[in-house]
Amino acid sequence: MNPKKDEKKITPRSQDFAAWYNELVLRAELADYAPVRGCIVFRPDGYAIWEALQGELDRRIKRTGARNAYFPLFIPQSFLSKEAQHVAGFAPEVAVVTHGGGKELDEPLIVRPTSETIINHMFAQWIRSHRDLPLMVNQWCNVVRWEMRTRIFLRTAEFLWQEGHTAHASREEAEQEALTMLEVYRAFCEEILALPLVTGRKSAAERFPGALETYTVEALMPDGRALQCGTSHHLGQNFARAFEIRFLDANNQLQYPWQTSWGVSTRLLGALIMAHGDDQGLRLPPAVAPRQAVIVPIWRNPQEGEAVRQAARQLLGELERAGVRTHLDEREGVTPGFKFNDWEMRGVPARIEIGPRDLKERRATVARRDRPAAGARFALALEETAAKMPGLLAEVQQSLFAQAREAMRRNTFEPKDYAELSRRMAGEGAGLASLFWCGAESCETKVRDETRATCRAVPLGQDEPGGRCLVCGEPARERAYFAKAY
Amino acid sequence: MNPKKDEKKITPRSQDFAAWYNELVLRAELADYAPVRGCIVFRPDGYAIWEALQGELDRRIKRTGARNAYFPLFIPQSFLSKEAQHVAGFAPEVAVVTHGGGKELDEPLIVRPTSETIINHMFAQWIRSHRDLPLMVNQWCNVVRWEMRTRIFLRTAEFLWQEGHTAHASREEAEQEALTMLEVYRAFCEEILALPLVTGRKSAAERFPGALETYTVEALMPDGRALQCGTSHHLGQNFARAFEIRFLDANNQLQYPWQTSWGVSTRLLGALIMAHGDDQGLRLPPAVAPRQAVIVPIWRNPQEGEAVRQAARQLLGELERAGVRTHLDEREGVTPGFKFNDWEMRGVPARIEIGPRDLKERRATVARRDRPAAGARFALALEETAAKMPGLLAEVQQSLFAQAREAMRRNTFEPKDYAELSRRMAGEGAGLASLFWCGAESCETKVRDETRATCRAVPLGQDEPGGRCLVCGEPARERAYFAKAY
Repeated sequence: MNPKKDEKKITPRSQDFAAWYNELVLRAELADYAPVRGCIVFRPDGYAIWEALQGELDRRIKRTGARNAYFPLFIPQSFLSKEAQHVAGFAPEVAVVTHGGGKELDEPLIVRPTSETIINHMFAQWIRSHRDLPLMVNQWCNVVRWEMRTRIFLRTAEFLWQEGHTAHASREEAEQEALTMLEVYRAFCEEILALPLVTGRKSAAERFPGALETYTVEALMPDGRALQCGTSHHLGQNFARAFEIRFLDANNQLQYPWQTSWGVSTRLLGALIMAHGDDQGLRLPPAVAPRQAVIVPIWRNPQEGEAVRQAARQLLGELERAGVRTHLDEREGVTPGFKFNDWEMRGVPARIEIGPRDLKERRATVARRDRPAAGARFALALEETAAKMPGLLAEVQQSLFAQAREAMRRNTFEPKDYAELSRRMAGEGAGLASLFWCGAESCETKVRDETRATCRAVPLGQDEPGGRCLVCGEPARERAYFAKAY
Repeated sequence: MNPKKDEKKITPRSQDFAAWYNELVLRAELADYAPVRGCIVFRPDGYAIWEALQGELDRRIKRTGARNAYFPLFIPQSFLSKEAQHVAGFAPEVAVVTHGGGKELDEPLIVRPTSETIINHMFAQWIRSHRDLPLMVNQWCNVVRWEMRTRIFLRTAEFLWQEGHTAHASREEAEQEALTMLEVYRAFCEEILALPLVTGRKSAAERFPGALETYTVEALMPDGRALQCGTSHHLGQNFARAFEIRFLDANNQLQYPWQTSWGVSTRLLGALIMAHGDDQGLRLPPAVAPRQAVIVPIWRNPQEGEAVRQAARQLLGELERAGVRTHLDEREGVTPGFKFNDWEMRGVPARIEIGPRDLKERRATVARRDRPAAGARFALALEETAAKMPGLLAEVQQSLFAQAREAMRRNTFEPKDYAELSRRMAGEGAGLASLFWCGAESCETKVRDETRATCRAVPLGQDEPGGRCLVCGEPARERAYFAKAY
């Protein structure tokens, strides 16, 4: 804690989005750079958000019937090569262990970039009969992908994630599972992280290496770039064939199962920060805020101090009993103004001030982090503060979602022609383009090469769109979202 | 699920302890061998026990004031060398990443065997003033130590653990922290895992590499070998000096902080299994049992089946509302006897049978896993079953602890002379020897070389013991526990 240093403001978001993001992350003590290329340290305030997020998502995953397990960090190099597209996708970015216990290894080991290969090796031993299906496991773990351009939470060599892997008796069931998880991710991101999304399938070029189909949830950041928040893959029988997973069906016939995998990672922390943060710092949705409310007692002399702190401690107890994660800031030697700035920087959804005058009038002064500083403070009767806080936090959650949805709406557009698409993508705050598309990879490649926008999602369940491809002018197969992406 | 195969019994524990353990772990589907040397797969039933254990221990750790964080998997090779004893202890057993992203790395990276070095590198940047202290972080993660002799859960190349790291302004405060965590581990192991322990400090020879003092909690397994369940280290200023961590004290003087680290790992799963398991399989303490009670409905014809299953589902709801983690086994195509054996193997603390006759008499037939099969079943009024279950589970928890404590008591002895120590250590079920010791490393080495017993723990707070060293006959400094160890 260095009061002087910490009172410096961070770069305004509108001035330099990337600088704003980095400064916010460091100043709010969410993370720090590590002494290993591409790696970061999750500091307690950042990790606590991950824990809150993880706890809620874990419950939702378990409700679908998947159970947690843990598979090895190391994968024999030969495993990666068993599925042709998979190895092509991941081989260039793996970290390789060549020595162990002081000796060179006979076969190098890959540090897992994802666990399809080793999990399917195990599935081949566990699956014998249709009665063993569906088999649904999930693991929370670290993975490593050698990245050259690092960005805290968004793109790091090591990151944390969950990866679910399932095997089913039929294609339909696997397809349903992939879609179920797409919906789990959508509901989780919108309800818990207050992140509005577009959802759909990926184009062939953007699919997971080895998948038949990849479904995605995508958010739009305030700088106009899209961020992939989670993916769910229908793997078909590709890995089953590569790893010789077979089961006896009800008619005693040997069959390959149909599989899925799905995951979200700590990049969700980056999405949270970018979508909700402002020039004062982080703004956390109450559902994942480690501290939902902070109480700042204010006084000028010891007599006042005693009474104010006693009232603050009583309120702390009441809030905790009301199920509100509350912190009482009793730090000495820093001003209330410093504390206000500090908790704003750290994104605490509700600040509660209690001073001598508040006490005299039996009230608390409350500030909501979702509202701009001017006019954000209001009084609550001290006796009712704890009872009203859960409702107030629910409003903050809704309000952050509404603000993010409005920002997304403003930044989503339907280009009339290719020139408009190019112009928008070349400018500031490029945004999310909803456009008619013939579905051909050649058109997708042209857009990517010329505008740097990629196909983010093709919404599901489209009727005949009726228009013409924005790129080639042929009849459109569908509408698709294109954007520059993180 | 293969009914035939699964009805084969496992090797009796008294016949071959190691075979019994391995067969139990595989049959109860707790873990499986992985296709990577020294690594294992945690299957859902095994991982669920780890999650239960982790949840409870995490709450206890947070109550001491530590917060969770996450540091990188990879450590620059040069870091490991900064503390002389530390590198000597860990260098022989590390895994080394030499290639990343298709290129040879300039400096090889160590896969963390423990995180003192990288965490202290970060502490050096975060600690400036006495106001930054104490700094207390904990992380749950995977670590890798290249092991040649693998034993599931007990000794594996990769394992899961928590490691706490703290920095304090004074030696006394660090010493107190190390002892606080010793007590957290003791209470956790005894209250939650039902594992009786001896506690104390390690001899100099058995200390953590780089520590001033190592404190330990040790359990005695039924085969007479000790198992280290957790350790807490007072690191002094060794790492602070090596990583140049300094703070300005209240008098504006630069000081090195005093530090601790402490951890427990997935080896606790091995301790649980060995301490409580029997010839029918696992016996889980209710506090960490993923399924605390299982309901087995029994019927012969469809009319019976309908009524029985309806009653079973109602009871399931009642038990869940009573806070009991309950599973209803509605599998078709296997006999009730098969289900009984299956749930005994998986260690579920309470089995509840409901058959047509039970239903007629409005009762449930309950079997406690902590009691031998003969005479273990008794009836409870159906209406009272849910209400009585929490109390009954508390009794099972106590009973498992009492049985383990009695087994430990029977296997602990005070050898009269060195010959008795040698004889006991050479025999079956060697046991835990409490002996007078002069404290000299030469005597410890002699015992280790001749009997393979090592000093497990020196109890704290001993008065003058008054006896003579069992090895050299000189006046004893203290009593110490010696045993052959896992």
